[in-house]
Amino acid sequence: MKHGGDLTEAIARHGGAPASWLDLSTGINPWPWPIPQHLPESVWQRLPSHAETRALLDAARKTYGVPDGADIAAGSGTQALIQLLPYLAVPGPVAIVEPTYSEHAAAWRNAGHPVVSIENLDVCPDGAVHVVVVNPNNPDGRVPDRAALTRIAAQLKGRGGWLVVDEAFADVDPAISAVALCPDWPVVILRSFGKFYGLAGLRLGFAIGAPDLIERIAGALGPWPCSGPALLIGTAALGDQPWADHMRGKLEQRAHELDQVLAKAGFTIAGGTPLFRLARHPHAPKRHAALARRHIWCRRFDWADDLLRFGLPPDDAGLDRLAVALRD
Amino acid sequence: MKHGGDLTEAIARHGGAPASWLDLSTGINPWPWPIPQHLPESVWQRLPSHAETRALLDAARKTYGVPDGADIAAGSGTQALIQLLPYLAVPGPVAIVEPTYSEHAAAWRNAGHPVVSIENLDVCPDGAVHVVVVNPNNPDGRVPDRAALTRIAAQLKGRGGWLVVDEAFADVDPAISAVALCPDWPVVILRSFGKFYGLAGLRLGFAIGAPDLIERIAGALGPWPCSGPALLIGTAALGDQPWADHMRGKLEQRAHELDQVLAKAGFTIAGGTPLFRLARHPHAPKRHAALARRHIWCRRFDWADDLLRFGLPPDDAGLDRLAVALRD
Repeated sequence: MKHGGDLTEAIARHGGAPASWLDLSTGINPWPWPIPQHLPESVWQRLPSHAETRALLDAARKTYGVPDGADIAAGSGTQALIQLLPYLAVPGPVAIVEPTYSEHAAAWRNAGHPVVSIENLDVCPDGAVHVVVVNPNNPDGRVPDRAALTRIAAQLKGRGGWLVVDEAFADVDPAISAVALCPDWPVVILRSFGKFYGLAGLRLGFAIGAPDLIERIAGALGPWPCSGPALLIGTAALGDQPWADHMRGKLEQRAHELDQVLAKAGFTIAGGTPLFRLARHPHAPKRHAALARRHIWCRRFDWADDLLRFGLPPDDAGLDRLAVALRD
Repeated sequence: MKHGGDLTEAIARHGGAPASWLDLSTGINPWPWPIPQHLPESVWQRLPSHAETRALLDAARKTYGVPDGADIAAGSGTQALIQLLPYLAVPGPVAIVEPTYSEHAAAWRNAGHPVVSIENLDVCPDGAVHVVVVNPNNPDGRVPDRAALTRIAAQLKGRGGWLVVDEAFADVDPAISAVALCPDWPVVILRSFGKFYGLAGLRLGFAIGAPDLIERIAGALGPWPCSGPALLIGTAALGDQPWADHMRGKLEQRAHELDQVLAKAGFTIAGGTPLFRLARHPHAPKRHAALARRHIWCRRFDWADDLLRFGLPPDDAGLDRLAVALRD
């Protein structure tokens, strides 16, 4: 199973209606930003206007702390930007800090770039023209050292390449972001709207970088990459600072409770972010299968047979259901 | 003004609230397919599933008459596909039948292809590796000859190139579609959901072609290019054959009424489709300016000073308002 986000395969194998499953396979916040009951009909009917796009980008600039001397573009989900960047980048090998979100390697390979897997930024080969690092990393939560990021960015600048920093899960702690590097270096920061705001179906993501770099990305995206609802809801949600502040505390609390349930069941916490936990168990595949039979879906990995990743249960009943299933 | 779809510039110049404008600058159906009052919350929150994508593509196959031996992929609006194709196409010049939707030339040029403007398919230069033609054409409504399309497709096959047929406005008459060419030739058909279904803000478009071609396009789009609401609403609307049949008649009727208003005001109809009319007038720029002062926004062209394009007024009041404004 390549993606944790799709229950289709789990249901095909183990049966059950989608609603009967406890889906812990994603890192999506289970408490979404509250969408207004009624959206104006015009957001569905009209093409999004320049003014609406401007409002979204202004809200995103503020929330993501985009400095002067950097710019921002919006796409239909971070995935769309991950797909696009390899086509815009100069030819040459990309080094990716792994294990991580597998779509980075797939997209660069698909666009014809040789892909090198590296364990951390300190062992980045001289031949790499581009580097991809996820910050904090999925699934282990690693945060790359700021000095290392700056050093790599400076090296890549000399090679005409880009440092792509995927900050899909950085909303949980704004201090994590490497956005301050953008004005001075060829750094592309990716920010995902759907995960922290719990609205992955909306498809909204951002690229932040130096103005010439963002101009190229925006030019390749073309007009109207985002839907009317994404512009309206994204603008409102990104402007809702009190909700974000409250949510950070709530996610940390629930992640702590999840850790306790996992520890009680013999797992050791190996990493993660407040949106998902990486947990180690000597019989991880067996536990994964046992949970699946009880229609609880977590994430396993083909590169490690002692690790599982758990997203946050949406309520106490879900947490209890997991605890009971893990006791059996 | 490059795009007719954006009132922002018109309002900046002439004032007025967006709702006070009669926007006839687009070719979007003013009577949208009726969106359900309440969408399930999951379409916003979850990543779209394989099953949901499959359902959309099945509905689209049927509605667009995709033959056996051809496949279909969905993107976040036809524009996103227009942007992507030039990056996937082999290097080489593209010939575009013009005047037409200007984003085709912009996208191919942006991706590094030389662009040649041609008047019709009969004068396509031997050096063209790719050809783009809009069917029916925007703004004049021209429908390219099927024999000419087949001849060009056969030539391009020998050059490793693609014939891109943009059928953004073909829903008004399914017989127009060149989709039957797909299994045998390197033809990419683009279909726009938002125009005929009146839901341009949803961002949904399709590419149809031979399986290997569509596999490349789908691979470059990556997972989840479309939003959850786009999948749900698109599947339901594309499956609503009675609505489509009724709408074709309604659009033709209103286009006929619009023609009468324009003729009465001294215009001659120069072409179009039931979703927009191209009208000739010796003082077109003056008429455009006079309408704009009355907050009626139609489309003018930098390549012709005697043509204007009018979309359909959404109601009788709108049609009357246009008639009165044209009398002054």
